[in-house]
Amino acid sequence: MNSMKTQSSVVVKKFGGTSVGSIERIEQVAERVLGDTRKGQKPILVASAMSGETNRLVSLASEINPAYRGEAYDMLLASGEQVSISLLAMALEKRGLKPEPLLAYQLGIQTDSLFSKARILSVNHEKMNSIIAAGKIPIVAGFQGVNEIHKITTLGRGGSDTTAVALAAAIGADSCEIYTDVPAVFSADPRLVPKAKELPVLRYDEMMEMASLGSKVLHFRCVELAAKYKIKIHLRSTFEKREGTWIVPEEEAMENPVVSAVTHEPLTAVIKLFPVPKGTGFLADLFDKLSKNNVVIDIITQSHNEEGQRLAFSLPMEDLEQAKEIIGSSYGDQVNISVMQDKAKISIVGVGMRNYTGVAYRFFNCLNKNEIDVDLVTTSDIKVSAIIDKDKLSQAAIGLHSEFGLDNDQ
Amino acid sequence: MNSMKTQSSVVVKKFGGTSVGSIERIEQVAERVLGDTRKGQKPILVASAMSGETNRLVSLASEINPAYRGEAYDMLLASGEQVSISLLAMALEKRGLKPEPLLAYQLGIQTDSLFSKARILSVNHEKMNSIIAAGKIPIVAGFQGVNEIHKITTLGRGGSDTTAVALAAAIGADSCEIYTDVPAVFSADPRLVPKAKELPVLRYDEMMEMASLGSKVLHFRCVELAAKYKIKIHLRSTFEKREGTWIVPEEEAMENPVVSAVTHEPLTAVIKLFPVPKGTGFLADLFDKLSKNNVVIDIITQSHNEEGQRLAFSLPMEDLEQAKEIIGSSYGDQVNISVMQDKAKISIVGVGMRNYTGVAYRFFNCLNKNEIDVDLVTTSDIKVSAIIDKDKLSQAAIGLHSEFGLDNDQ
Repeated sequence: MNSMKTQSSVVVKKFGGTSVGSIERIEQVAERVLGDTRKGQKPILVASAMSGETNRLVSLASEINPAYRGEAYDMLLASGEQVSISLLAMALEKRGLKPEPLLAYQLGIQTDSLFSKARILSVNHEKMNSIIAAGKIPIVAGFQGVNEIHKITTLGRGGSDTTAVALAAAIGADSCEIYTDVPAVFSADPRLVPKAKELPVLRYDEMMEMASLGSKVLHFRCVELAAKYKIKIHLRSTFEKREGTWIVPEEEAMENPVVSAVTHEPLTAVIKLFPVPKGTGFLADLFDKLSKNNVVIDIITQSHNEEGQRLAFSLPMEDLEQAKEIIGSSYGDQVNISVMQDKAKISIVGVGMRNYTGVAYRFFNCLNKNEIDVDLVTTSDIKVSAIIDKDKLSQAAIGLHSEFGLDNDQ
Repeated sequence: MNSMKTQSSVVVKKFGGTSVGSIERIEQVAERVLGDTRKGQKPILVASAMSGETNRLVSLASEINPAYRGEAYDMLLASGEQVSISLLAMALEKRGLKPEPLLAYQLGIQTDSLFSKARILSVNHEKMNSIIAAGKIPIVAGFQGVNEIHKITTLGRGGSDTTAVALAAAIGADSCEIYTDVPAVFSADPRLVPKAKELPVLRYDEMMEMASLGSKVLHFRCVELAAKYKIKIHLRSTFEKREGTWIVPEEEAMENPVVSAVTHEPLTAVIKLFPVPKGTGFLADLFDKLSKNNVVIDIITQSHNEEGQRLAFSLPMEDLEQAKEIIGSSYGDQVNISVMQDKAKISIVGVGMRNYTGVAYRFFNCLNKNEIDVDLVTTSDIKVSAIIDKDKLSQAAIGLHSEFGLDNDQ
């Protein structure tokens, strides 16, 4: 896998919240960076806020106004990374290195003005190159940017990963290291599937699907950006030396298994409506109302028989109450609403599916053998997802993991 | 005292750490500001970090390297004000106002590059005026600035007061409101002198002496800046409507009492050295060594008799151990060192002293009547200070407070 590393000695290294979650861990990160520099590397560091800090700030804001988003909210949250990069700079300074902590306005990380979910437009790579040329180690605050009138913006959940990939792209690096508290991406959640194994390699498309399907390891937009600029991501543990998972373009992966991973989303609900008016007018109106209230809709199915039109869709459990309220107040007098709680979504992901037939058959057959009923289904060219009962989730995951040859001993 | 207020409707209001120390208090501040705007005021707000926050950040930094000061330290500490102004902005927003939280780089508060004790060089008043003209309420992060290469600097202890006065000066205001958790400056510490009274007015020189002599109410540099630009400071309680203490130019005060206040500094030590070499070479060498190790020296006296030269000086208790170590290792073989702990400094301050004789006599006579011995003494044209035993401090303060007609019932 060494051939995948960039030949340049400049390497972007991003450390997550748990990696800088205490002074002791910050010292460990500094020690690791010191070792890297002794091997001739020129690191560019990116840090998240200390774990727990962003939640602390969010809860302060919620005490004042839980609904508010905007300029002040982003300024508030951005303070978390300001703290962690300052402390990391001190820890490097103590070891005789020359750190330069950089906030977004100092480095020039330009974004659009969508507060709380801004997109990076450009990074001042000349500034970064001049810092490195001066023998210094840039330590960049992740998650934050500035818009064209110098307001602080933030990039949304997992935004620091996106910052790291954007920096790698800006300096023309071909890879980026994401340090976290897990050693790799797994073929399934090991707490659910004991035979889950570490994946040495994944393709961008797979990682993006997994991010959408509930894997919390990497944020969707970070992988999307990496794919756009062909930046290989090396996801690895802060506290171990060995390599983790490389996320690479499809053509660079050694082999493309039919299924690379089984993922799941445990907190899912299903809402069924009957009878709904024919035509798309009702649907457009319904989903518009729900999305304006930030209710996230996942899988949607429609069917009709002689009695009339039926609609069913899945959504996160946390949005259920709000969705019920909106539907009840708007259409309560026209349609019957039935709600199924304690559901879960199980999915298989793999770019190899594109070249194999019968994957969906094996998926449903496996669930059927395990006597697991399926409520809703959705597929793409590289994934199959189904809504099932939550108490069957582990059984389904173990079954599918084995069915598609992912077990550790295979 | 109303005549002292600026006629302009733009008023700089600074809220200290306890005033924004919790969400509840931030809401109270916002409520007060809302009331002010309804009366037609156009406030410019300055906030300190939430009380306790700066200490939390300092202790994180100390865990890594207690000796480090520099760029990363200032960036770390500046995050505290970023949090408080963001939260205050949300609280105003909730009340239908249009706040604009402003960090130093956004407003353009330029300082020199002396990290942790930077001085403000300029404030972009055009930016501030345009924000006010747009009907918005600027909320400025106190304590912080940026140097000419966009690094964050901080202004030292009490720096937010200095920020407020600098803003008032920049927009040509003739006064500035400092909101704090005490209702006024007192003629003595009420915990020490039960008959201490609130002072409706103080002169700049007196407030500067008091700041130097242990009063924690306002920082020296803030008053110095106010004096330079003739900005009247109105120090008052965040939680009461009534006026507090106005700090004004000497010529504007109604009357100049001989003594305006009694101040004290309880944690003082005295070091005596004997015999010391004649000439100033030894003294220069000694005080150079101590100051390079950040040991603060206060009162110094020298005397000599037939046995040789004697030197005595006072210093804060917290610097005592370090001072003993430095002196012992450098001169331990030449001089005898004796240390007096449990000392305190008592002072009287008043611009009226300039026009009265016999003040020093009354000071010492009062201490003498109370059988209080004096170790070291220093005077200026508006103050007299003496080092006494700490257990006599309260007695001395009560005696002097009464002697100079400051008691509440007089």
